[in-house]
Amino acid sequence: MQKILIILLLLLCSQAKAQPIQWKEQYPGVWKGTFGQPEKYTLLSAADSKPRAATLEQLQSTDFPFPKMEVHAELIDGKTYVRMPLTKNEQIYGLGLNFQTVHQRGKILNLHVDHYGGKDNGRTHAPVPFYVSSKGYGVLVNSAQYLTYYVGTGVRKDAKEPAEPKDRNTDKSWNSRPYSDAVEIYIPAAGVEIYVFAGINPLDAIKRYNLFCGGGTLPPRWGLGFTQRVQKLYTAQEVLNEAAQFEEHGFPLDFIGLEPGWQSRAYPCTFEWDKGRFPDPAALIKKLATKGIRLNLWTNPYISPEAGISKAIEPYTGSHTVWNGTVPDLNHPEAKKILAKQFMDAQLNIGVSGYKMDEVDGYDYYLWPDMAKFPSGISGIQMRQTYGVLAQKLTDSLYRNQNKRTYGLVRASNAGANNLPYVIYNDYYSHQDFITALVNSGFCGVLWTPEVRGSKTGQEWLRRFQSVVFSPMAMINAWSSGTKPWSFPEVADQVKYYAQLRMELMPYLYSEFAKYHFDGTPPFRAMVLEEGFQGQAKAVAGNQDLETNPYLEAVNREVKDQYMCGEYILVAPLFAGESSRKVLLPKGNWYDFYTGKYVGNGEEIVANPDMDRIPVYVKDGGIIPMMGSRLHTPLPNEKVDLTIRHYGEKEGNYQLYDDDGVSFDYEKGSYVWRRVLVKKDEKGSLSGEMSKPQPGKPNTFGRVQFEFMTK
Amino acid sequence: MQKILIILLLLLCSQAKAQPIQWKEQYPGVWKGTFGQPEKYTLLSAADSKPRAATLEQLQSTDFPFPKMEVHAELIDGKTYVRMPLTKNEQIYGLGLNFQTVHQRGKILNLHVDHYGGKDNGRTHAPVPFYVSSKGYGVLVNSAQYLTYYVGTGVRKDAKEPAEPKDRNTDKSWNSRPYSDAVEIYIPAAGVEIYVFAGINPLDAIKRYNLFCGGGTLPPRWGLGFTQRVQKLYTAQEVLNEAAQFEEHGFPLDFIGLEPGWQSRAYPCTFEWDKGRFPDPAALIKKLATKGIRLNLWTNPYISPEAGISKAIEPYTGSHTVWNGTVPDLNHPEAKKILAKQFMDAQLNIGVSGYKMDEVDGYDYYLWPDMAKFPSGISGIQMRQTYGVLAQKLTDSLYRNQNKRTYGLVRASNAGANNLPYVIYNDYYSHQDFITALVNSGFCGVLWTPEVRGSKTGQEWLRRFQSVVFSPMAMINAWSSGTKPWSFPEVADQVKYYAQLRMELMPYLYSEFAKYHFDGTPPFRAMVLEEGFQGQAKAVAGNQDLETNPYLEAVNREVKDQYMCGEYILVAPLFAGESSRKVLLPKGNWYDFYTGKYVGNGEEIVANPDMDRIPVYVKDGGIIPMMGSRLHTPLPNEKVDLTIRHYGEKEGNYQLYDDDGVSFDYEKGSYVWRRVLVKKDEKGSLSGEMSKPQPGKPNTFGRVQFEFMTK
Repeated sequence: MQKILIILLLLLCSQAKAQPIQWKEQYPGVWKGTFGQPEKYTLLSAADSKPRAATLEQLQSTDFPFPKMEVHAELIDGKTYVRMPLTKNEQIYGLGLNFQTVHQRGKILNLHVDHYGGKDNGRTHAPVPFYVSSKGYGVLVNSAQYLTYYVGTGVRKDAKEPAEPKDRNTDKSWNSRPYSDAVEIYIPAAGVEIYVFAGINPLDAIKRYNLFCGGGTLPPRWGLGFTQRVQKLYTAQEVLNEAAQFEEHGFPLDFIGLEPGWQSRAYPCTFEWDKGRFPDPAALIKKLATKGIRLNLWTNPYISPEAGISKAIEPYTGSHTVWNGTVPDLNHPEAKKILAKQFMDAQLNIGVSGYKMDEVDGYDYYLWPDMAKFPSGISGIQMRQTYGVLAQKLTDSLYRNQNKRTYGLVRASNAGANNLPYVIYNDYYSHQDFITALVNSGFCGVLWTPEVRGSKTGQEWLRRFQSVVFSPMAMINAWSSGTKPWSFPEVADQVKYYAQLRMELMPYLYSEFAKYHFDGTPPFRAMVLEEGFQGQAKAVAGNQDLETNPYLEAVNREVKDQYMCGEYILVAPLFAGESSRKVLLPKGNWYDFYTGKYVGNGEEIVANPDMDRIPVYVKDGGIIPMMGSRLHTPLPNEKVDLTIRHYGEKEGNYQLYDDDGVSFDYEKGSYVWRRVLVKKDEKGSLSGEMSKPQPGKPNTFGRVQFEFMTK
Repeated sequence: MQKILIILLLLLCSQAKAQPIQWKEQYPGVWKGTFGQPEKYTLLSAADSKPRAATLEQLQSTDFPFPKMEVHAELIDGKTYVRMPLTKNEQIYGLGLNFQTVHQRGKILNLHVDHYGGKDNGRTHAPVPFYVSSKGYGVLVNSAQYLTYYVGTGVRKDAKEPAEPKDRNTDKSWNSRPYSDAVEIYIPAAGVEIYVFAGINPLDAIKRYNLFCGGGTLPPRWGLGFTQRVQKLYTAQEVLNEAAQFEEHGFPLDFIGLEPGWQSRAYPCTFEWDKGRFPDPAALIKKLATKGIRLNLWTNPYISPEAGISKAIEPYTGSHTVWNGTVPDLNHPEAKKILAKQFMDAQLNIGVSGYKMDEVDGYDYYLWPDMAKFPSGISGIQMRQTYGVLAQKLTDSLYRNQNKRTYGLVRASNAGANNLPYVIYNDYYSHQDFITALVNSGFCGVLWTPEVRGSKTGQEWLRRFQSVVFSPMAMINAWSSGTKPWSFPEVADQVKYYAQLRMELMPYLYSEFAKYHFDGTPPFRAMVLEEGFQGQAKAVAGNQDLETNPYLEAVNREVKDQYMCGEYILVAPLFAGESSRKVLLPKGNWYDFYTGKYVGNGEEIVANPDMDRIPVYVKDGGIIPMMGSRLHTPLPNEKVDLTIRHYGEKEGNYQLYDDDGVSFDYEKGSYVWRRVLVKKDEKGSLSGEMSKPQPGKPNTFGRVQFEFMTK
């Protein structure tokens, strides 16, 4: 009997083997490919995001971006092998939140949700299996398994253009990494779903991907203000004191984050307030609210036996524990129900604004092993790949039910979570690599904060602070160090200048996030997505000592330390110890953000501002709507005066977004795009105008004035 | 129809799920466990080694080393999950050639043949899935898949002795890594074979494992002499000059290694001589032979299209290429036949003594991807895990056919290759980590050379040289640097002293290798395998700064820089820059190797010899048979005078091995163990004797004198 079954099974496998991928166009320029028996539980099913169908359907239809014949799929030993074509000079970006590299061609990545371990090997907080090609298309493998990508590394005997073998003994052009014409993907499952996204350029493909995953997230306005995470064992009174100090020092503050000490037990957690440190949390939240400050709570999902919900949730927890706490099966409706009730009763109902979901990423030593079992039936691996997304989804849904937006922090994400209001952070702390992560976040539909924690010197503090201001979440994470914005007196004024600038930029930043939501454009993104940018990775000779580099491997030089912030702003951070840096400008005229002066066009310039300034540039015709500096985000119905900056000599236009800033009413049409135009008259002088408010639509803008920065 | 098949398949899986492991005692204290449907191609089937049945059958029968009930095996999603019990204070050693850690409890390893990348994560040249417990048993998982081991890390809800959860907010004893009572093993296959080896102590279990895998390898005597690998593009004449220089300088030399330049094309290879650099290789080998020097050839197995065998072997090569060369399927009889003929015709038949098999390990960027296909039907993963073993097996078989032993180098190995005459090496070059690898090699049935390549200073050169002398292969690898033993004049005398000492120690070292073969005792091994050694890993507080060590992880301190060389010698290397070090002595009296003076007993001592000496100690009653210093290994029939050293105050005995040193006749009984005894008379004075030669057995020993080192 067993033998017959095995034979039948082999037949079944060999049938699957012969099937080509079945492609079906789902939206203009978005194809779904099915091969073999795809698994039911996938990244997209976990995220359960709904494509922005109406927007997608309006996009232009295009051809499949490469010959379908060149896609190869095969079942080998019950695993799926997919090969996608690559052409000469094509570059590949994405494949998750990498920290050290932007150009992925030539890499091998095993995508695995994990804390970042210092190497771009696929283990990261958001190992999103989506890549985008410089030729303007994207590919998503919708699988919650650990996937291995060989991005132009493997060379097949049957390659279309096999390179010539060379004699290393005599030929100096011998290369340890010969030319490869394919992305090869190893999927340890007996079938798979693949999505292909077309585009007129890489950004266009990314937009399709983001729209397909529900559009990017639109944070509440206050989410773009400043946040300070206080020391881990702070009491309610110390939290109030901290808020007061910010006010005294004139530093903006929109939400405070509490660290583990708010809970009666932590690591594992009770999700209950510690009665000693927080005797009346509702009162604390109210007091803070009167000052325009919200409260965010740290937690991890692992459940202490002392938690009130511990017994009830036990049947819906996994086989293994984390720090001896049970692991709720966030794919199980009962586990979600019990947690939801606890979160509602103890936190949301008294006004907690959001969460910081810690330790949903890894690392292996704390989390469950791959063979762990969960009552909902998904594997330990599938749970690992989606746990962060499930945690985001659960908490976001509670806020949605209240018609309130949240904006929080999470340590793990994956494909499909594009629309979830969470920013990724971690325990790593390289300023340079944090900027590269910001660059890469835009390729894969996630947000990242290059948070500031502590610093060895005032200079480092200022340099880190300057770049966190141009990021999705302006966070100081003082849970351990207790550092305050004014802790380094020698740079306190400069830090305050940038804190205020962040608040002034809110109308611009909020509009850029709205574009992320409505048309899929990532607010923070790589230079290579900018038209006219010509920085390509260059392989340069590595160490020539055969004893330390026996294969004479080349080193890749790439632009990974400058990025676009919204439509018009280019940010080029300086790092502690540096007094100048090179900046590669895309084609077109560029202007200094602070002075409006022309700086260059399509060329490499050297920026050497003094320590007070982070190099920031604006594109010709760039329009930056700003508001006056303030300590807290405007209230939903408050009207705010705007100063709209214009840079350069070109006419310009801008779509300025407005809504109530806090609810989901925008999903029902309660929002407006205000058109800003800067025109040039016959004499060449510039004037600006903004479209009128629309009746029945939100209007939070007061007086408008234009500032022409380039004289 | 498909649905029915799937249902049947699920039934089949669930049947397997319910099966316990079936254990069968194969030899006294050796059990084979079978679970599910084990794969046909395994590590042991690739190595195809024959247990030393006669020896194993004489061992004492013992109980299964832990309750069989506590072994758990389960099929989850078509993969196998095995759990083995762990008790408190039990330590786990082995799991392959690790470079930085000896104690494996608390580690997670994904065993994957690869070059060593600087971290003990399971990717190494010999990721042997065999571990040995401090309680005296060993476990081998016989699978050629990538296996994940959670060695006392995962904590289950149903753990026997679950630890108490703690509140990190208030409890300083909170530990980021709670107590775990199991080794959990993830095997991505629908069944597996597991072997359990009992023992009265860990060494005894290792001996059973080695005997089960055919016993350790016995190199030819000359393999224990000195070897120099010459620069990569040397000509025949330069090779002869190099040999002459060694003679002039009075440095021993037993075999010379040629690097890529001997081949007409390399990376990928032709396996053919370069006619320019080597117009008459047979004549070269003959000339060298007259001087007592043999020739070893570098190669990798990847085939240049310019190789004569290229076309013939093409049908038996894999789907992917390496450096644009084809990859012979070393599991395919036709591929082996073609390669064997080439090796025989061009190399073995003119007297080449062995090979250095390069790049059979990795890394991923050069080798085939996991989904590569091979004509013999095994997967890319199975090929990766066994390629080094297959390469060893192929070449060893050619020498066996000639009844000649070989001794070569290889970059990859695995379980079952214990009996194959290859020493592992790599491109990494940390002296400290090279010593730790030597310590670990003894846990997993492989040999390792802490080779000397180049050095920044004379001191470093000497320190590295001193330790390579106490290793399985005394190699200088000058392929790139061209360094010679006398290249640092300031230490040339000391280097010569140690080169000569290596030759003097040959009778001892050769006997220790014979014990490896006949009774399974590794010649180089960890201190923890020595009776009375009390160095256990200690967890000490790590960095206390939460910003760089957020989980306050402890650091493991363990003894990983001293080791046993044969029965009686303890080696404690010094590293460049050090002038003294701590040495932890096992219980019993220990004596200085050079002077015979007492140094300590079961305690930590400080060794601070001057730069001339590497600290080496001998156990009380230790007997070290030595011969006079010489430049080349004695010829098979040459008689050698012995000086037998005795250390300490105890009586002693030693089994001194003898055979022809070059053939496999020892497998047919043509060998002898000569018994050496040192006795004490009533007055306490020591005298020594050696048993007589046996008629009809080899006898290569001449006059014998005893030297009592401890006065």
